[in-house]
Amino acid sequence: MKTGKLVVVLPNLNESHRQRIRDAAEGHGLEASFFDHVRDSIPALAEAEIVLGQSEHLAQHAPKLEWFCTPSAGVNHLLGSDTFASPDAVLTNSSGAYGVTIAEHTVMMLLSLFRRRLEYDSIVARREWKRDLPVKSIRDGRFVLAGTGDIGQEIAIRLRSFGPKSVIGINRSGRNPGGLFDRALPISAWEQALPEADALILSLPGTPETFHLLGKDQLALLPDGAAVINVGRGSIIDQPALERELRTGRLCAALDVFEEEPLPQDHSLWSCPNLLITPHVAGNMTLPWTVNRIVELFLEDLENYCNGKPLRRRIDPQRGY
Amino acid sequence: MKTGKLVVVLPNLNESHRQRIRDAAEGHGLEASFFDHVRDSIPALAEAEIVLGQSEHLAQHAPKLEWFCTPSAGVNHLLGSDTFASPDAVLTNSSGAYGVTIAEHTVMMLLSLFRRRLEYDSIVARREWKRDLPVKSIRDGRFVLAGTGDIGQEIAIRLRSFGPKSVIGINRSGRNPGGLFDRALPISAWEQALPEADALILSLPGTPETFHLLGKDQLALLPDGAAVINVGRGSIIDQPALERELRTGRLCAALDVFEEEPLPQDHSLWSCPNLLITPHVAGNMTLPWTVNRIVELFLEDLENYCNGKPLRRRIDPQRGY
Repeated sequence: MKTGKLVVVLPNLNESHRQRIRDAAEGHGLEASFFDHVRDSIPALAEAEIVLGQSEHLAQHAPKLEWFCTPSAGVNHLLGSDTFASPDAVLTNSSGAYGVTIAEHTVMMLLSLFRRRLEYDSIVARREWKRDLPVKSIRDGRFVLAGTGDIGQEIAIRLRSFGPKSVIGINRSGRNPGGLFDRALPISAWEQALPEADALILSLPGTPETFHLLGKDQLALLPDGAAVINVGRGSIIDQPALERELRTGRLCAALDVFEEEPLPQDHSLWSCPNLLITPHVAGNMTLPWTVNRIVELFLEDLENYCNGKPLRRRIDPQRGY
Repeated sequence: MKTGKLVVVLPNLNESHRQRIRDAAEGHGLEASFFDHVRDSIPALAEAEIVLGQSEHLAQHAPKLEWFCTPSAGVNHLLGSDTFASPDAVLTNSSGAYGVTIAEHTVMMLLSLFRRRLEYDSIVARREWKRDLPVKSIRDGRFVLAGTGDIGQEIAIRLRSFGPKSVIGINRSGRNPGGLFDRALPISAWEQALPEADALILSLPGTPETFHLLGKDQLALLPDGAAVINVGRGSIIDQPALERELRTGRLCAALDVFEEEPLPQDHSLWSCPNLLITPHVAGNMTLPWTVNRIVELFLEDLENYCNGKPLRRRIDPQRGY
C-alpha cells in the first residue's frame, strides 16, 4: 500500500548513510525513519511501505508492506510461508555487498590451511623454533569454486593474482562469468572437478538444490590433503561426513557456516582436528566498505521502485535466491 | 682453483633436482656430489671448486673454492671476515626464489591482523558465537612496502588484486620496478609515507643501512591502528620500541624475523599483545616451488660461470646484498 513511509532498521549506518537515504526518499515524496533495534521500530512498521532491515520480525509487523530489502545476501530466514504480514510484498537482498569481505576471509583461510597455521600456532604457543613443516602454495594450485556469483568472482580475481594452475567455477548453468574461470561446469557435472581440487571453496546459497551437495561420496573424490572452505551456507555440507574426513586427517577445512548456528557449545566440531572455525564472520557487516555498498545497492533499487521499474535484486521465493 | 668439483649440500632436493644439476655439471666437465648434512660433506669440500649450500661451515672447509651459491636470499651469515677459507671466492644468493612464498605469508598475516584473528581465536577457543568485531579491508587500504625487490614486487602484485587505495614502494633509488607501485620513494625520504600507511610491510635485507630503520620516531609517524609486518630481517626494527607500541595497543604487528633468532624462550615478545609471531617460516625451503626455483637460478648462474660470464646474483660484500 502506498503509505509513503520507509522504515530503516540498521544499526551499522552512520549519519552520512542516513542522510543519503533520507534525501533520496524525500526526492520521491517518501518519509524515512531510522531505528537501531527492531523493538523500537514496531509502531512505525504499521504504516511501512518499504523496509530496509535484517530481521524477519520486521516483515511480520508490516501489514502494508510493498517492498522488503534485506542487507544480507542470504534470505533463508525470510522465506517461511507466514513470515510476511503482507503476502504480496516483494523481497530483495544485498547480493554484491559481500564479495569483497568474504573473498578476503577466504584467501586468509586458504593460506592458513596451506601454510599449516594450526600447527605453527601450537609451536609458537610452546615458544619453540620449529620451522620445517612442508607448506603448500596457491601458486600452481588447482581450485574449484562452487558458486560463481559476486563472492565466487571476487575470490577468483584474487586467486588469479597468485598464479594458480587452474580455477574452475561451478554454477547452475555452466556459464563462465566475466571469463574469470579457466572452465565452468554445471552443478550436475561438478563431481568431475573434485579429484583435481587442491582446495574446494563453497559460496553457494542454501537452497533445496544445494542441500548436502558435498556429501560422503563427493568428499571421497577429493584428493588426499585437499582443503575445503565453506563461506556459503552450512546446509551445503553433510557435516558428519566432513568431520570423519577431518578426524582421519585426510582433509582439512575452514568453516564459517554450519548446519546449526550458533554451533552448539557441546558440538564435536569444536574439538575436531584439521579444522579452522570462525563464527559466521566472513561476510558480516563490520566492514565499512560493505555498509557503503549496502546503502548504494538499496538506493539503486529505490530509484527503480519509485520509477515503477523492476527491482534489480528481487528474490524468487521458489528458488530461494 | 679449477678442481672440477661441485659440492651440493641441500637436503630438500629430490632425485629429479639432483639429476638436473648432475647433468648440467657433467656437460661442463664438472663432477657433482650431493649431501644432506654438512658433516658428511667435509672430505669433499677439501677439493670443492663450487659449493651450493646454506651453512657458513661449508665455506670454512673449502680452501680451493671459487664460487659459493647459497640457497637463501639473506647472506649475513656469510659476510664475516674469516668465513671463507678461500678469500677470493665469489658469493651468490638465490634472490628470486622466495618472493612467491613470502608474498603468500605476508597476505595471510596482513588479513589476519585486519580481520582480528587474535581476538577471534580466543572467541572460538571459548566456543562463543561473538561475531561483531570491526574489521579492516585491503580494499581501499593504503600500503607502504619497504623493499621493492622480488619479494616486494610479488606482494604488490597480490595486493593490487584486492583493490587497494595505494601501494607505495620504498627502495634505495626511488625507482618504480615494473610500474607495480603507485609511487616509489628513496629510503632517505621514506618517513613522509608513514603517516598514511594502514600497513607497513618490510622486506628489506639486513645491512648497516637498514639497521633500526624503523625506530621509535618512525613508529610514532604511523597512524593509530596501523599494522607492521616484517618478513625481511629482524635488525630493521628497533624491537623494544615496537613492543612498546604493541603493548599500548596503538599498533599491531606480524613478525617472522627477530633481532635474535631463535627468539629466546624468556623473551617478552612471546607474550606481547597485538602481535602474531611466526618462527622465520615466511621464506623457508618447504615449498616445492621454492626448491625448484633455487635449482633453476643455480643452473642459470652455472652456465654463466662455465662460460666465463658474470654471475647474475653476485653479492657485493660491502653492501651486503
